[in-house]
Amino acid sequence: MIIAILGPQGSFCEKAANQWNSLAELRHYDDIPDAVDALLRNEVDSSIVPIENSLEGSVTLTLDLLMEHQLKIIGEVTVRIKHCLLSKGDYNRIKIIMSHHQALSQCRKYIKTNFKNVEVRPVLSTSQAARLASESKETAAIASRESADIYGLSILDENIQDVNENVTRFIVIGKNTPPATGNDKTSIIIYLEKNRPGALYEILGEFADKDIDLTRIESRPTKKILGDYLFYIDLKGHIEEKAIKETLEKVKAKVGMLKIIGSYPAAKNPG
Amino acid sequence: MIIAILGPQGSFCEKAANQWNSLAELRHYDDIPDAVDALLRNEVDSSIVPIENSLEGSVTLTLDLLMEHQLKIIGEVTVRIKHCLLSKGDYNRIKIIMSHHQALSQCRKYIKTNFKNVEVRPVLSTSQAARLASESKETAAIASRESADIYGLSILDENIQDVNENVTRFIVIGKNTPPATGNDKTSIIIYLEKNRPGALYEILGEFADKDIDLTRIESRPTKKILGDYLFYIDLKGHIEEKAIKETLEKVKAKVGMLKIIGSYPAAKNPG
Repeated sequence: MIIAILGPQGSFCEKAANQWNSLAELRHYDDIPDAVDALLRNEVDSSIVPIENSLEGSVTLTLDLLMEHQLKIIGEVTVRIKHCLLSKGDYNRIKIIMSHHQALSQCRKYIKTNFKNVEVRPVLSTSQAARLASESKETAAIASRESADIYGLSILDENIQDVNENVTRFIVIGKNTPPATGNDKTSIIIYLEKNRPGALYEILGEFADKDIDLTRIESRPTKKILGDYLFYIDLKGHIEEKAIKETLEKVKAKVGMLKIIGSYPAAKNPG
Repeated sequence: MIIAILGPQGSFCEKAANQWNSLAELRHYDDIPDAVDALLRNEVDSSIVPIENSLEGSVTLTLDLLMEHQLKIIGEVTVRIKHCLLSKGDYNRIKIIMSHHQALSQCRKYIKTNFKNVEVRPVLSTSQAARLASESKETAAIASRESADIYGLSILDENIQDVNENVTRFIVIGKNTPPATGNDKTSIIIYLEKNRPGALYEILGEFADKDIDLTRIESRPTKKILGDYLFYIDLKGHIEEKAIKETLEKVKAKVGMLKIIGSYPAAKNPG
């Protein structure tokens, strides 16, 4: 089993992959599209990418790739994110703080309070930031505790995210739908075609009628006209279950497009 | 009238401000929280910040600040975004491409096709990228046409965004709700309290009953627990209209929280 993951060693994505399958061979890619491409080219058996963070919300690039390609979500993993401030130098000598822009947002208040005149520089990933911080004593990275060991950095501060509950949900993408386990989720994308009043209401009614629990609704632009949206919906249940299957058939008849992007076991508590 | 806007000269936000009020005095701020803070500290009369792009979706930082503070959306402006590749040097000598991370995403395919071995570097804004590009012939910026003049750069390529329809919606934030014009929008945030099946369905039913057109529904994390969301809803109509007022009162009785973040004239076509 070969899994594509993001970033160099020590990334939160690597942590997610170890939680999902500790025996798999991991291959590192630079960004989300590269990790997904690796699967499309059959270089790997599955890819693990972030889809949602409890502070920042959706990873929109991942949502867009799920719309673009014929791939299936085959699993999900949640990882508790604890950001650390890492550097080779002293706290008082830091002139640049680097990290992925989402991590920088998650620590915005911490940086504003403690580093008034420091340059904040977004880079591709938290682990790239750690690698770059190992090259200068005046640079600090916001990254995982694991990155400190890998890149020979000191942990200057721990748990620096603005809110303590910081969990990222990763999805495992593959090509075949896993069988029902009794505790599953199904993810779909719908396009309502006409933005007429009450269109979304009618669709949600189909799910409410059957007591199907929607765990998430997220809108994304269709990329055609401003104000034209796709809806990403996660619901409890597996596509093999009769109620789910029948409801999705009814919904399909009412919408411009329905794309099922996966039925998969629901994640356990974050590790 | 003093308006806080984002970025140095030549930013798309400056364009939005000129469209909104061409006589106002503009003050430039580094980032969205700073532009909003300026209003909270009464340094300016209003602030203009981006809220949504037709390719990238919501500007989540803006959504979060609307939840956090007691401010009102008093207007909206849409601006057509045409990205240019700007540099002091030649096309073939470019080693680094800089821009705001959203602009880089919007030109992702263009960069991948034309600049295989170039370093892509996110910076705070498109106009900061233009300023930095003016310092080295090996650096290019993705920014507005206007930035080329301001920073003495050549336009190497025009309209390089991956999809041609690229419109950003900016909001004007102030402290008092403007009167109804007959073509208005109202923006609200609701929290459903319990994520029980059908809760959102019931709420949308209240709007559907009165034929109130919802132009946008967007979920954002509450930042407490993964899977717990706020819903941002834009609807057609002004809070002073009877149908809107009564429906919002009914909705308020059914939800954990309802926050009205503005009733304001709807934008004209993008400029």
